[in-house]
Order: sequence, then C-alpha cells, then structure tokens
Amino acid sequence: MKLWDKGFSTDKKIDHFTVGNDRELDLVLAKYDVMASTAHAKMLGKIGLLTPEETVQLTEELDRIGMDIEAGNFTIEDGFEDMHSKIEYLLIQKLGDTGKKIHTARSRNDQVLVAMHLYLKNELGEIKTQTRALFDLLMELAAKYRGVLLPGYTHLQIAMPSSFGLWFSAYAESLIDDLYFIDAAYKVADQNPLGSAAGYGSSFPIDRTFTTEALGFETMKYNVVAAQMGRGKVEKSTAFGLAGIAATLSKMAMDVCLYMSQNFDFITFPDELTTGSSIMPHKKNPDVFELIRGKCNKIQAVPNQLTLIINNLPSGYHRDLQLVKEVIIPAIQDLKACLEMAAFTLKDIRVNDGILEDPKYDYLFSVDTLNELVQSGMPFRDAYKKMGMDIAAGTFTPKRDIKHTHEGSFGNLCLDEIRKKMEKLG
Amino acid sequence: MKLWDKGFSTDKKIDHFTVGNDRELDLVLAKYDVMASTAHAKMLGKIGLLTPEETVQLTEELDRIGMDIEAGNFTIEDGFEDMHSKIEYLLIQKLGDTGKKIHTARSRNDQVLVAMHLYLKNELGEIKTQTRALFDLLMELAAKYRGVLLPGYTHLQIAMPSSFGLWFSAYAESLIDDLYFIDAAYKVADQNPLGSAAGYGSSFPIDRTFTTEALGFETMKYNVVAAQMGRGKVEKSTAFGLAGIAATLSKMAMDVCLYMSQNFDFITFPDELTTGSSIMPHKKNPDVFELIRGKCNKIQAVPNQLTLIINNLPSGYHRDLQLVKEVIIPAIQDLKACLEMAAFTLKDIRVNDGILEDPKYDYLFSVDTLNELVQSGMPFRDAYKKMGMDIAAGTFTPKRDIKHTHEGSFGNLCLDEIRKKMEKLG
Amino acid sequence: MKLWDKGFSTDKKIDHFTVGNDRELDLVLAKYDVMASTAHAKMLGKIGLLTPEETVQLTEELDRIGMDIEAGNFTIEDGFEDMHSKIEYLLIQKLGDTGKKIHTARSRNDQVLVAMHLYLKNELGEIKTQTRALFDLLMELAAKYRGVLLPGYTHLQIAMPSSFGLWFSAYAESLIDDLYFIDAAYKVADQNPLGSAAGYGSSFPIDRTFTTEALGFETMKYNVVAAQMGRGKVEKSTAFGLAGIAATLSKMAMDVCLYMSQNFDFITFPDELTTGSSIMPHKKNPDVFELIRGKCNKIQAVPNQLTLIINNLPSGYHRDLQLVKEVIIPAIQDLKACLEMAAFTLKDIRVNDGILEDPKYDYLFSVDTLNELVQSGMPFRDAYKKMGMDIAAGTFTPKRDIKHTHEGSFGNLCLDEIRKKMEKLG
Amino acid sequence: MKLWDKGFSTDKKIDHFTVGNDRELDLVLAKYDVMASTAHAKMLGKIGLLTPEETVQLTEELDRIGMDIEAGNFTIEDGFEDMHSKIEYLLIQKLGDTGKKIHTARSRNDQVLVAMHLYLKNELGEIKTQTRALFDLLMELAAKYRGVLLPGYTHLQIAMPSSFGLWFSAYAESLIDDLYFIDAAYKVADQNPLGSAAGYGSSFPIDRTFTTEALGFETMKYNVVAAQMGRGKVEKSTAFGLAGIAATLSKMAMDVCLYMSQNFDFITFPDELTTGSSIMPHKKNPDVFELIRGKCNKIQAVPNQLTLIINNLPSGYHRDLQLVKEVIIPAIQDLKACLEMAAFTLKDIRVNDGILEDPKYDYLFSVDTLNELVQSGMPFRDAYKKMGMDIAAGTFTPKRDIKHTHEGSFGNLCLDEIRKKMEKLG
Repeated sequence: MKLWDKGFSTDKKIDHFTVGNDRELDLVLAKYDVMASTAHAKMLGKIGLLTPEETVQLTEELDRIGMDIEAGNFTIEDGFEDMHSKIEYLLIQKLGDTGKKIHTARSRNDQVLVAMHLYLKNELGEIKTQTRALFDLLMELAAKYRGVLLPGYTHLQIAMPSSFGLWFSAYAESLIDDLYFIDAAYKVADQNPLGSAAGYGSSFPIDRTFTTEALGFETMKYNVVAAQMGRGKVEKSTAFGLAGIAATLSKMAMDVCLYMSQNFDFITFPDELTTGSSIMPHKKNPDVFELIRGKCNKIQAVPNQLTLIINNLPSGYHRDLQLVKEVIIPAIQDLKACLEMAAFTLKDIRVNDGILEDPKYDYLFSVDTLNELVQSGMPFRDAYKKMGMDIAAGTFTPKRDIKHTHEGSFGNLCLDEIRKKMEKLG
Repeated sequence: MKLWDKGFSTDKKIDHFTVGNDRELDLVLAKYDVMASTAHAKMLGKIGLLTPEETVQLTEELDRIGMDIEAGNFTIEDGFEDMHSKIEYLLIQKLGDTGKKIHTARSRNDQVLVAMHLYLKNELGEIKTQTRALFDLLMELAAKYRGVLLPGYTHLQIAMPSSFGLWFSAYAESLIDDLYFIDAAYKVADQNPLGSAAGYGSSFPIDRTFTTEALGFETMKYNVVAAQMGRGKVEKSTAFGLAGIAATLSKMAMDVCLYMSQNFDFITFPDELTTGSSIMPHKKNPDVFELIRGKCNKIQAVPNQLTLIINNLPSGYHRDLQLVKEVIIPAIQDLKACLEMAAFTLKDIRVNDGILEDPKYDYLFSVDTLNELVQSGMPFRDAYKKMGMDIAAGTFTPKRDIKHTHEGSFGNLCLDEIRKKMEKLG
Repeated sequence: MKLWDKGFSTDKKIDHFTVGNDRELDLVLAKYDVMASTAHAKMLGKIGLLTPEETVQLTEELDRIGMDIEAGNFTIEDGFEDMHSKIEYLLIQKLGDTGKKIHTARSRNDQVLVAMHLYLKNELGEIKTQTRALFDLLMELAAKYRGVLLPGYTHLQIAMPSSFGLWFSAYAESLIDDLYFIDAAYKVADQNPLGSAAGYGSSFPIDRTFTTEALGFETMKYNVVAAQMGRGKVEKSTAFGLAGIAATLSKMAMDVCLYMSQNFDFITFPDELTTGSSIMPHKKNPDVFELIRGKCNKIQAVPNQLTLIINNLPSGYHRDLQLVKEVIIPAIQDLKACLEMAAFTLKDIRVNDGILEDPKYDYLFSVDTLNELVQSGMPFRDAYKKMGMDIAAGTFTPKRDIKHTHEGSFGNLCLDEIRKKMEKLG
Repeated sequence: MKLWDKGFSTDKKIDHFTVGNDRELDLVLAKYDVMASTAHAKMLGKIGLLTPEETVQLTEELDRIGMDIEAGNFTIEDGFEDMHSKIEYLLIQKLGDTGKKIHTARSRNDQVLVAMHLYLKNELGEIKTQTRALFDLLMELAAKYRGVLLPGYTHLQIAMPSSFGLWFSAYAESLIDDLYFIDAAYKVADQNPLGSAAGYGSSFPIDRTFTTEALGFETMKYNVVAAQMGRGKVEKSTAFGLAGIAATLSKMAMDVCLYMSQNFDFITFPDELTTGSSIMPHKKNPDVFELIRGKCNKIQAVPNQLTLIINNLPSGYHRDLQLVKEVIIPAIQDLKACLEMAAFTLKDIRVNDGILEDPKYDYLFSVDTLNELVQSGMPFRDAYKKMGMDIAAGTFTPKRDIKHTHEGSFGNLCLDEIRKKMEKLG
C-alpha cells in the first residue's frame, strides 16, 4: 500500500529503512490529520469539488475515525506506510470513489505539515500551561519560605546571604523569559500551511482562507514555498522553546542535587521521592532531579540535532525531513514529563531552618557591614580597606540582622510584580 | 590594577590566561558601561548616597568619557583588567574620592550584566532593521520577477512549476518567523539587571525603578538571583534569535550557489560580485554567498557553544561566564555583515528568462494537467492512473499555460498580506 | 522488585519517569550482562567466595539464560527495573541462596559498565567489518569505472575533469581515516571496568586480572574511579567513531542526490531502489540516499548529545548517566543500517557515459592546456595571462585527450596503495 | 593583489567580508607554507620543471623568508589577501620570473591543505607532550597523596571511602584514552595532500612521493579528491582529539571548584593562584580552574561548529571551507593554554588531611563492614538486611581501618601498570 508504488516489488530492507518508526509516531499525530482532512473536505465542498453529499459522507466518516483515535482503537498495520495511507484506506473502504476524492488538491507533504502545525500548537499550549503551574508553585514556595536564609555563592565560595524566597522565585521569574520563546514558537506554528501541496501549490481553485479559519489558525503561511520550507523549521522553532525551559529546569535540578548533598544539607525530600540504601541510611539519592537534569540536557541538544538534519539542504522537499518527527515528538514528551515531575516533587520539598547558624557562614555578612560604613559616609574603596584590616586583626564581628529593602532583594521579593509580568504574557 | 588584588604578585601567565581578549571586546561594550554608570550615579544622588555636586561631577565626567569612546579615543591599556577598571581609574584620577564613590552599591557583576543587556538591545534592534530591509528587497524582487518561472524540485528532482516571485518572497515570509525569535530575545534583554550586585542584592536602599526608567528598560529583572542567572542566558536567548535568521540566510545562499552552477544556470551576478578565472571565463564563483552560508552555519553553532559553557553550573556567578562575551559579540558582528552583504549583492541579481523552455522541464506540467482531469469530475486516484498510462503510451502533451490562483501560489503571491504580517510585528 | 526499595511505596509516576525505556534497551545488552556475570562467578569461585559447586550452578544457570536470550525467549516484565534485576531474580528463583551470591563484590554500576564495554566492542567490530565491505565495493566500482569521466566542480562551478574512478575511491580512501577513530574508540572500550563496583572498588580480594582475561579484554581500566568515569565517556568515544563514518556517508549521499538530479544526470539506480510517480516518469527520487544523509546527519549530532548529558558533572556516579544508553544504542543501529543500505544500493549504481560531450563542459580542459604551455617553459603567471587573452579572443580550442599521470590522479588511481593503507589498519 | 582579479574593482566591503581575519591566522601557518613550498620547489627541480639554479634560488629565498617568520619579522599587509600571495610576492620581487614558477603544478587549495596538515601534526605532537607532562604530574601527586582519604560520592551523596591517590590517578589514566584520539587525529593529518591542486590533480608529471618524504609525512592522501575532501575533515578530526582532552580537564576542574568550596574544603591553592577579597578572607576563588572548565567546554563545542560549516556540502571546494581555520586555530591555542595552566597550578595543590574525621562521613564505611559479613559466609542480600537493622537500631560502629587490596583500588593503585599503558602509546 505504497502510494508511490510503480508495480515493482520493493525490497523489504528498503521498506524497513525508509518507514522506520513512522507508524508509532503517527499515532500521536493521527487526530490532527483527521482534523485537517475534515477542514479540507469542507473546503472542497465549498468550492464545488465535492458534492454536498460527498462532503457530509467524508466528514462523518472522518468523525468516526477521530473517535476511534480518541478511544485508542486506531492502529496502523505494517501493510500501511503511515497514518495518511491508513486513513485514506478506511475512507475508500467505506465510501468507495468518494473516499478517493479526499486527496484532491493536496499532497502528503502538506498533510504532514498541517498535522504537525496543529500538533505543535497544542503541545506548546500544554507546555505553557504546565510551565505556569510550576511558576505558581515556585512563587508559593518563595512566599512560604521567604524568611529562611541560605548562603549565596559566587565561584562556589560562600559569599553573601541569600534566601529560599530568592531561590524559588528566581527560577519562577526565569521561566517567564523561557515563555517568550514558547510564544515565538507558537506564532510560527500558528500559520496554516495546508494548500501548499508538494511545496508549489496547485492549479485547483482551493480556498486557503477557509481552511485557515476552520482549523483555528491565526493566519496562513501564504507563500507555498515558504510553507514547505517550514518542514523542519517549525519543529526547530519549537525546539528552541523547549530548550529554554529545559535549561532552567536543568539548572534548578543541579542546585537541588547539590543542596541535598550532606556537604550542603539545605533541603530534603520525603523518602518516597528519593532512592537510598538501608546500610547507608543518610543516603537520599535525588534520582528524580538527576533525571530531570539529564533529560533536560538531552532536550537542549535537540535544536542542534534538527539543524544538522535540515541544514544546507536546498529549498524543496527532501526525504531527510521525515526524520524530524522522531526527534521532536519524544523531546516534547520528555519535557512535559520533566515539568510534571518537577511540580510533583517540589511541592513536598523540605527546607532546613537555621542553616546560617553554622560559623562557617559568618563571613557572609561582611559585605553588608561594609556597606553600613559606606552609608555612614566613607568612600567605598576606603571602607573596603578598613574592613580588610579589621578582619585581619580579628576585630570584626558579623552583624546578622541585616536588612535588604530594594526591589528584588530578599527583604523585598516583588512577587506581585513578577506575577504581573507573567500575566502580561497572556 | 586588579581590583581583587591582595598584595601578592600574580603570575603573568595567570593574568594572560584569565584576562584573555576582554580588553578588545570591552571596547564594544564601553559606551553601555558609561550609560549605565551615569544612570547609577544619578540614582545614588537621588537616594542621598551622593551629594548633588558629586552627582553632577560624576555624570559630567562620564559624559566626557562617553564622548571619547564615541570618537574612538578610548583605550584599555594592558595595566587594566577591563573597561570597568579603566573607567573607574579615569574617574578617580579626575575626581579623587568622588570618583571612588561610583562603585557604591554595585558590583562588577551587575555592571557587566547591565552593559550586556543594553548592548544586546541595541544590536537586536539593528538586526531587526537590517532584516526588514532585506525583507523589503526580497519583496521587491518578488514583485519584479513575479512572471519568471523556474522549476520547482522535490528530492532535487524536477517536480512542479515554480517562479522567482515565489522564490524571493518565500525567503521574505520566512524571515518574519525569525523575527518572532528576535523579539523574544529582545524581551529577555529589555529587563534591567542593575542592582543585583554580585547576584544577591545589597543592603543599600537603591532605587532600581529609577535606573530602569533612566536606562529605558521596559521592566526590571526583579529577583536579584534571577538577574544574575541572566548571565549567559541573555546571550543564549540572543543566540537563538541569531540562529533563526542565520538558518534562513544559509538556505537562501545554498539555493543561490546551486542556481549559479552551470548545471542550473538560473541566476547570475555582475562580475564584481563574483570571483573567477581568466582561463575559465564561464566560472563565476559565488564566494559571497558561500561565505554567507558558511558564516551563517557557524552562527547556528553559537547556541550550543553557549549552552556548553553555562550548562550544569549551579546558581551563582562563576568565572566561566566571562567567556560568553567572546562568543556572542563576534557572532552578532558576523550576522550583521551577512545581512548587509546579502542585501548588497541581491539587489544586483540577474534572473534568467525562458528557463522552462528546455525540454527537460516538460514533465513539470503533468500534475497540473492531471488536476484538470480531476476538476472535470474524475476521482484523483483514477485520473492519476489514466495519466500514467497516457504518458507511458507517449500520448501526453504538457499544457504550459497553467494558472495557479489560490492564496500563496505563483499566480497569487499575496505580497500585501505578507507585508501586513511583517507590519504587525511592530 | 526495586533493589533499592526501602519499604515505601514509590509513586508509579516516578517509576515510569525513572525507568523509561530501559527494559527495551536492556534486551540488546542482556547477553553481555550474562557473559560478565559468568566471568564474575568464576572469579568468585577462584578466590573462594563461592564454593566450586556454587560456581558450577551459577555458570550453568547463566548459560541457560544466555541461550534463552539468544533464542529470543528472554523478557523483562514491568515488575523488573532492568535486565540486572530480572537475571538475578531468575538465578535466585532457581538456586535460592546461591543465586543471591552472584551480586557479591560488584554493584549495578560496574555491571552496566562492563556490559556496555562488551557491547560496544562487539558493535565497533561489526561496524569496522561493514565499513571495510563498503570500502571494497567502492574500490571495485572505482576500478570498473576508472575510465568514465565526469566534471569536477569547485564552488559548484564546472572546473576540471574528474572521473568516477576518482569519485568512488575518494570515498573509499576517506573511510580509512574514519576507521582510525573507530580503532581509537575500540581501544577505549577494550578495557575491563568490572571490579570498580560503585566507583570506589571494594574490600573484597577480587581478582580483576582474572575477569579481564576471561572476558577477552586487552587490558583493564585499573583505577576504579577512572573506570566509573568511563560511563558516558566510553559511549562518547564510540560516538566520535560513528560520527566520522556518518560524515563520509552523508557527503557521499549528498553527491548521489545531486548527481541523480536531471540537472546533472550523472548516475541512476534501478527503479526498485528509487521512488517515483507514474505521472512524472522521469522522477527517480533517491529516498534511500536522502535517508542515509538524514540519518547520518542525525548521528553526527550524537557526540554533542552525550556531551550535554555528562558535561560539568563532578566525578562519581549520577543517575543522569543512565540516559546515555538511549542515545548510543539507536545511533549504532542506525549507522549499521546506513552502511548496509549504502552497500546494498551502490552495487546497482548505473553510471552515465559520455557526460563530458556536452559543450557546457568544454572549459573543463582549459587548465590542462595551460599546463602544457608551462611545461613547454613559460612561467605559470605568464601562461595564465596568455590563455586568458586567447579565450577572450575566441581562439582557444580545448584539448580533450589529456593525461594525468601523477600519484592519485585519474590516470593513476593508486588503488593498490590505498588498499595497502586499509590493510595496515589490521 | 587578488590572484583571481579580473580587472574589475571589487568593492571594499566584499574584500573585508571575504578576507576576514585570514591574515592574522596565516601568521601561525606561514612557516608551514614555507616548508611546503620548499619541498615543492625541490620536487619541481627533480622533475625538470625548474632548473637546478632556479631550484637553489627559490629554496634559498624561502629559507630567508622562513627565518624572518621565525624571528617575528614577517607581516601580511592589507594589500595581500593571505600569506600565500605575500610569500609569492616576496619571491617574485627578489627572483623575478623564477619567483613566478613556484606556483607551477599546485593551487592555493592544496597549498592551504598541506600547510594545515603540517601545522596540525606539529600541534597534535605538542599537545601529546603536554598531556604526558600533566599525566606525569598527576601520577606523582597520586603517589605522594596515596594515603590521604577523601569521601567518594554517588549522586553527590556521601557513599564510600576514596583517596587522593585514586582521584589524581583517575584523571591520569583517563588522559590515556584521550590520547588514542589524538593519535587517530595525528594519523589523519600525517598524509600528504600536496599535489591534489584544486582537488582534481593536474597534468604535470609531479612526484608526490618525493614531497611526501621531503615533508616527513608517513604516507600521502593518494586520491586527489579525497585529499581535497580533507579540508574541514582533518580539522574536525583534530577537534575530536581536542574535545576528548578538554572533557577530562573540564571534569577535573569541576571537581577542583567543588572541593575548594567551604562546604567541601578538601583542597586549597596558594593565594597567588586564586582570587579573593580582603573583606571575605575565607574566599579563594578558583578562577583558573573555572576558566579551564569554561574554555574546555567551549572547546568541546568545536567539532559541532566544524560539522555545521562543512556538512551537506557536495564534494569539491567551496569557499565556506576557508572558515574552518578561524575555528580550529584558537581552539588549539586554548587547549594548550589550559594544559599549561592545569600543570602550572596543580603542582602547588594543597591537600587537606583528616577529612574523614568529620562524623558526617561515618557511614562511608558501612559498605566495607557489610562486605566483611559476606566474606565470613553470609549471602550478600542477607548481610545487607542485617546491617540495615543494626544501623536502624543504632548498634552499628564503623570500622575505619579498612583495606582495599584489589587491582585499581585505593590500597593498590597500580600506578606502574597505568604508566605502562601510557608508554605503550609510543
């Protein structure tokens, strides 16, 4: 059931090599293919290439296939190259000649494209929702632990007082930046490529404005060559979006793994969220966060994977483009799992009180003491020299009841302002 | 003149290893450091840490330094670690104790950060302007050559008729997508990090809202830890933006190089824009486009370079972050040069007429002939079989006067709609 | 059946998140785990930690499991975390307390490591064999088509005469370079890590020299910390090896796709090795080579994927390392498939004669004519000027019966010398 | 002084865009160009294309230029495109027509190639020497501190006793693996490409065996197309070699930065090798190691940079290949600096004694106690359960005088065996 079959028996090796794991990935995309086929059928009806009866028959049958997909009853057997051929087969089996007409004025290339655009729009929307949920959780944790101090490091050296309020909300505010890229990727996906056919349009008087509206796209990718060039590019745009969030999660996971080490001992998690060993009862391995870190680092490699696949290809379709599916779909699933697991475990994080009582953290406060000198009128560089001499002489006592009051400092987290920034994203 | 010097003579090797080419790169950033220092001085005046006289003295002196920079008279000698120490030195030399006060309530870390944010905002703005100019040129070329057909390829095989109208405007429309990412990067840069000090804020009652407005930032990066975590991240955000445009330019350059080959012979350029050989007079080497392609491919590697430098570092400053400057600044300069050269040469492109008269392009028209059968009522798959048999029997004659009328096809380029999409970007 | 279970019910989400697709990948590795377990059991017997009877029982049972694996009868059910727990379960089920003793003096960490080393050695060996087979085919094709000329391009411009003899054997000789890296990767894998336990060795008086010899390793990774640091690194070493071959195959595939275009028309393949369309009978889509190119470009991204996962992790095991399996194993399988398909299709390549008769290739010969002038005594730069003037004046006639005689030129391919270089690899 | 100049005045913008920083990079390569030119001149003499007198004149003049380069007196002014045109200019200026003859039977393409091969051979040799020196130092440190214990971590959790003997020699043994890749890269570089001309050889009866021997190459890259395809590939091979060593240095630097944190406090360095602050006297910022880490992570990005530049280019020269120089040369210089700084600072490392006396490290010894139970006959899984209960009941006392005796454990570092492995590399 190869659509391009010319009557020659194609060697099975080639079949396996060329089809790859497309059938499996297509199960994820099939519902979007049905949506797009439905819009396409209605459009063909509108411009008179299908009779009203044919249009009704096709859309009803596509609805049924859509329900099967939703119910998990849709399969793509080995005899079919992909979802497109299976769906078309089902339509022909049921509707005969009418079924064959669904393929009028489109090609598999724009079918794949439009399904991918719809899929990515949906996934980017879900990722945004999950990211906001994680943002909300981090902001709650920041508010809850705003009073708990922890050492701030520079060069991994103990440097200045920080707080869990700062730490949690830093990652929250950082996620807003990442959503700018999710939004950019969404805009790229939110353009209808259907009608570009094999990349050069067609002589049919199709109505692309109709399908654009029917499918809920904000606009269309007008130029048919540009639409086709979107293959690979729309996925890479999404990958940039994924990579941004992944970098933030990975960095937070690195902090978590470090802070759980007995050498820091700043935070902990309930036993069921860690792994351990009954002969080393102190051991609380942060497997979940190590895997968040590892998976997110792998996700950060995705833009480059896609670039390598599509780079330096002249314009026009090439079979290489088929391979981008197997890169982007698992990456999306991985990021969603990481966002879910991060929220699932962070809600149970336990934060240690009294960390700064350990004398090794005494010098954390020296900068603030210095600043008091400055505020009392001494030039910075002079105050700095005096403090250095006091410390060297052993006459320095850290003042622990410091106040930080400016915007964004641990005494003034500006959580409301940060929330407003997130809300502005829409 | 190391600010952190403790009186020990530091080995020169270490000096060379640690300072690297910072001085050279800092010449690019120095004007932004002066802008930020001026805003910082005014803010210190406002909150009473500087007297009105001191504020005036500092801002006037900073203006003078700024003018020197603009005039190309600013240098960073080997005795200075970077621009920050040189500028501070100049202030102290001129103003004595007052000069020392500029460093009150900030650290070199947020100085570097704010200068980088200002620099990136400016460069992203310029890149957007250049990209729009290239977009305009491509749209003009599309309009001018809308009637000139060229073969459209799939799998690098001759497939369907296309046109120079489609080809030029495809790259134009594609650039709009790239600008979504430039805009996202701009939003990340358009947040004031000044006041985050070493990454944990300070006990000074600084007014970050004041500096945010004075420097023209849309908002501030509130959380001081988030602001510090921006080091590396704001550059990587920019790099995602650069990579998008670079991918589009690189692909266009690949097409140009292919289309200039004698085996395609679709386009050409005046001799002064190519290189050649007097013994191979046919040779018109597209060096400019090969270098656009190569440089843009190198730019596409930048996000990964930055990721490797900053990845898996726990939160807080690390000296590694100093290295991102030497990656992002040349990449920005390269992309601007590529945008400039692309516009400079494309304006003189010469497009060959009558390409499709070569009989090897006859079958380009078979799909459109097929579609006519379909429009006359035959189901697609049946029409397809009939055509195949006609062609095999030698009874097929291509119909060359085809019309494509739908949105985005070569007969209906929708240039106005594409222009409107660009205008919506603001 | 989690070995680290502490009696708490672990949330299923975590289970899914942490186990991932390990079970599937472990089916590939299981035979190597059995081999290593067998050697480990014999060693425990030798040093008296197992009785001779226990040793026999364990090794016999492991043999049985190994045969089940070979026969495809081994499965890892959802209740088991991985192959290690399943194999241990089988041993305990059959042998009771004796079964439990297999885990003496090792940890899952060195179990995974040693299985991976054995797997990679085997796969690198197979890849070398496949690469040599492709080399041999290319050398045969070079000999067969040594007399068929084709244009040589620089800047994609027609430049100098080349030949299929040169073209085929260029890729062959290039593969030798790639094998230097396969050999380097092999040396890294050919070191026994067993005995490193969790990365710090153990207090058992194990005999690592014994297992090194029993498993056929050339040497051992002595230092136990170094052995553990091999996790991720041995896979990355292999990935460097894969990337080298992939780059060569990808470049050759790009040439093939270009040369099959109607605009070049240098080569073709039988219909069953291409895809097409009955309404565009000229169309011979090189899907196989497009997929070789795409897959090999994806493989070239693997070193960077692995680097991102393992980079900036301090020494010692981290759970992130579990993820390298899911990157390297499919990449190895893909490269083997590409090597197989390249050989499978190239053996049927059809090379077009008489390409250079087309007058557009006339100037190919101008350089050689120039060289004759030089050989007759004129300085190069002067001869160059004279030729340029002749050509400009239209008085130049290309001399087509050129001879290239030096080592490695199309008249003297040095196929034997190239074969000897390959043989020296051993 | 553009060799390809056709009399048209080329716009200066294009000049700047196309030449880039080639002149600066060429200063590094110039001595190798002179070496290759000398060998080429002698070969031309041997085959009679130069008279004996011409040969002597050219080689003597080249010697003089070579001495100028060595003495730092060689410059490439803006009027010259690159070193090749400058050197040729000097020869012509001095020798007139004889000077012009040096370019007989070669092209700039193989000139660049052969200079790059010679340069890379030399640099790879130096890197190997430096790596061995670092290896020797690490082995000395391992021997010196073999008795000093430190905690071994898994998941960044305190896990098992380790030692500085293990830690230092782990990185030493790991460097041996990296040298396998340096050797592989060396083999790729150690093949003479001279004579491939523009990538298709020439009709001159040149003697490539002669230049191969004269330049000290092990063999030649026979096939001229293969030789030309080496552009980009020989640099990428080197980059794989660099990336391996860089990964090892980066990981060691991460350990150093962590171990210098007050939260670990395992090692320290003299003040002159760290940066600090007189008001935070505890602060010893490991800037050198942070920069080693950062620079080595940047070096690890180089293979991908090169891949992106050269990937999917069809065979034959493209101007894009010019850009690989500016990527590989600084990367080589950076790695050499990192190797030098690592050795320079590590020789003064101070290792803290008595780390394990801190009670937080008590459980480090539980696994060894467990193993004693096993050695006394109890099955592993049962011993494990008993220990868990003892610890839970508070009846466990760690036995600190543990012995590890097996190959590669901290009690038996096998330093001689590791040294032998290094020696086998030759």
